[in-house]
Amino acid sequence: MMKNMKSRSCPFRLAVPMGDPAGIGPEVVLKSLSSDSLEADVCIVFIADARLLVHTSVDCGVPLRFDRTARSEEELKDALRDGAKRINFDLPCVDLDRFSYGKIDAMCGLAAYRCVEKATELAMSGICDAIVTPPLHKEALKAAGIAHVGYTEILGTLSGSENPVTMFDTLGMKIFFHTRHLSLRQACDAVTKESLLDSIIVCDAISSNPPGFNVGLPLAVAGLNPHCGEHGLFGDEELTAVEPAVGMARKLGIDVVGPIGADSVFHQAKTGRFRAVLSLYHDQGHIAAKTLDFERTVSVTWKLPFLRTSVDHGTAFDIAGKGVASPISMIEAMNVAKRYLSAGVRL
Amino acid sequence: MMKNMKSRSCPFRLAVPMGDPAGIGPEVVLKSLSSDSLEADVCIVFIADARLLVHTSVDCGVPLRFDRTARSEEELKDALRDGAKRINFDLPCVDLDRFSYGKIDAMCGLAAYRCVEKATELAMSGICDAIVTPPLHKEALKAAGIAHVGYTEILGTLSGSENPVTMFDTLGMKIFFHTRHLSLRQACDAVTKESLLDSIIVCDAISSNPPGFNVGLPLAVAGLNPHCGEHGLFGDEELTAVEPAVGMARKLGIDVVGPIGADSVFHQAKTGRFRAVLSLYHDQGHIAAKTLDFERTVSVTWKLPFLRTSVDHGTAFDIAGKGVASPISMIEAMNVAKRYLSAGVRL
Repeated sequence: MMKNMKSRSCPFRLAVPMGDPAGIGPEVVLKSLSSDSLEADVCIVFIADARLLVHTSVDCGVPLRFDRTARSEEELKDALRDGAKRINFDLPCVDLDRFSYGKIDAMCGLAAYRCVEKATELAMSGICDAIVTPPLHKEALKAAGIAHVGYTEILGTLSGSENPVTMFDTLGMKIFFHTRHLSLRQACDAVTKESLLDSIIVCDAISSNPPGFNVGLPLAVAGLNPHCGEHGLFGDEELTAVEPAVGMARKLGIDVVGPIGADSVFHQAKTGRFRAVLSLYHDQGHIAAKTLDFERTVSVTWKLPFLRTSVDHGTAFDIAGKGVASPISMIEAMNVAKRYLSAGVRL
Repeated sequence: MMKNMKSRSCPFRLAVPMGDPAGIGPEVVLKSLSSDSLEADVCIVFIADARLLVHTSVDCGVPLRFDRTARSEEELKDALRDGAKRINFDLPCVDLDRFSYGKIDAMCGLAAYRCVEKATELAMSGICDAIVTPPLHKEALKAAGIAHVGYTEILGTLSGSENPVTMFDTLGMKIFFHTRHLSLRQACDAVTKESLLDSIIVCDAISSNPPGFNVGLPLAVAGLNPHCGEHGLFGDEELTAVEPAVGMARKLGIDVVGPIGADSVFHQAKTGRFRAVLSLYHDQGHIAAKTLDFERTVSVTWKLPFLRTSVDHGTAFDIAGKGVASPISMIEAMNVAKRYLSAGVRL
C-alpha cells in the first residue's frame, strides 16, 4: 500500500513542523507556500495548529494557500494520494486566548516540540521524505520542560540517532564543523590529531554520497592559525594535529587535503575545487557561509534516518507577527532538501 | 611650482612599485594598464626596471602601454605636467642575465625594495598622491638583507610612521583587525579590555574621516566566541573584555556597538549597517572579506603620510612569467585608491 501511495503522490514530500509560534516560523512557511521561488514539484506537509495559522495569516497579511487539511495520518495519506501539494496537518497545540507574539512561553515551546515529534513520525514511517525546520526558541523549549537544546538533539533522540552531523550548504559550498558550541579557546584545545581524524572519517563518509556531492573532488581541511601558522611561526596545531590527521586519513585511502589557509579555502570551495570543507571551529565556517549569503545558508543534518534541512536564523521575536519577515531562508531550505532528494541522496 | 604642476596634471597619481619581479607583480600591473576596468582618470607611475618590463611583456604576451618613460623626478614632473597617464619610472635594478621567474632571489628582493623606496619618495614629496602595491616576497627581501617583513613595515619606516593600520575594503565593506599575525590562542589572549579600547579609539579616528566612510553609522566590534559566548556559556571574553571596552569607548563619545556575533556582523556590514567592523583576529576578518570576494579584497594602510592600497594576494611564483595571472585584484586596488582620493580622504 505504501508503494502504491508513493507511486501516485509527489516524490518530494517535505514535513515542515511549525517551530515556535511566537516567532517568525509560521509566517515564513506561509509566505514560502505562495512564493514563485519555491520549486514547483515539492509537496509541503505543514504540521501546525490550524487556528494559529489563520491568526498568523490575518496578522501578517499572508494568504493561506492549502489545498487540503489533514487531522490524522490516514487523512494525510489520502491527501497525498490525491496529489495534494500544500497540506496543513492540523495539530491543535496553541491556546489562542493566551497566545502572544515575541514572548518566551512554555505553551509555545511545547507546541514546537509536538510538531517536530509528529514530523519525525511522518519521516520515519516514510509518509514524508525529509524534514525542513523553521526556527524554535531554546528558552521556550526549556520553559516547557524539554531537555533538548534544539531540533538536532530532538531529532537525534526521537529517531534513535546518536551523532547527527551538521553541515552548511550555501549556494552549493558545503561546510562541516569539527566543533561548534565551544569557546574559541576550547575549540583550539579540541584540535587534536585523533579527534580530527575522526571528524575527517565521518565527513568523508557523508560526502562520499555521490548524489549529493561531487565525489571526484577532495575534502579540504581548513587551518587553525593565520596562514596555517607559517611553519610554526604563529601556532603549531597545523604541524602537530592537522597535518598528521590528514596524513593518516590519506593512508586510509581518503581523498583529503589540508591544512589550507582559512582565508583561502572557502574561496576555493566556492569556485568548486572541493567536495566540502571541514572547518575547525564554529565561526570559521559560519563567517564564510553567512558572509557569502546569509539568507541562503541552509543547515543540513546528516546521520539521521531521513534528510533534514533547516533555516539557520532564529525566531526573531522582535519582528514576529508583523508580516515583515523574509521567507528567503525557508524557501532555500525547502529547495535544498528537494535538490538532495531529487539527486537520490542515500542515507 | 608644485601647485602649478598639480593644476595641470591628473589629480589621481598612483605610484606603483614593481614588487618582486620574479612573481606576478609586473605582469598584473602591465595588464591593469590595458584594462577597460581601470578607472579612466587615474595616472599610473609604474616604478620598475624598463628592461625587465620588456622581458615580462614578451613572456606574458601583454602589451607595454606607456605614453612616457621617466628616469628622474624632473622627467617625471615634466611627464605629469604634459598630462601623461601611463608612465614608466625606469629604475634599473634587475640583471636580466641572472633573472628567472618563480625563484627566491636576493637581487629581486633588493629590486622590490628599491622601487618601493622610490615610490615613498614620490608620495612624500607630493609628486604622487598614493601608493598602490603589487606583491613582494618575504624570503627574497630577507635574502637581500632587508630586515622588514613586508611593505607595511617598509613604508612605516621610510615615512617615519610608527603604527600603520591595515584595513580591508571589499566591495565597500570595511574591516579592521585587532590583531593579525598571532596564533589563534595568542589572539584570544590579546582580547583584553585595555587593548581593545585602544583599537576602538584608533579605528574610530580613522573611520571618522567623512570622505572615505559613512560617518553616520556606528563602528561595530565582532564577538570572539560563537554567538558571543551566549552570556558566558561558552567563553567569557565578551563579558570581561569586549562589552567593557565598548562601554568605555561609548563614554568617550565614540559611536560603537558590539560585541556582535561574528557570523552576523559581516553580513550586516555588507548591507551597509556599519561604518566599519573591528575584527578580533586575523582569520575572522580575512574569511569574511575573501569569501565574499577574494579578488576584490583590497588592503588599505592608514596612519601613513599618504594613502596606500594593495592587492592581498602573493607573488604566485608557480605561475609567474606565464601570462595567466589575473589582474583583477591589482585593478581593484588602483580603483579603490582613486575612490578614496576622489572623495577627498584626509590623512
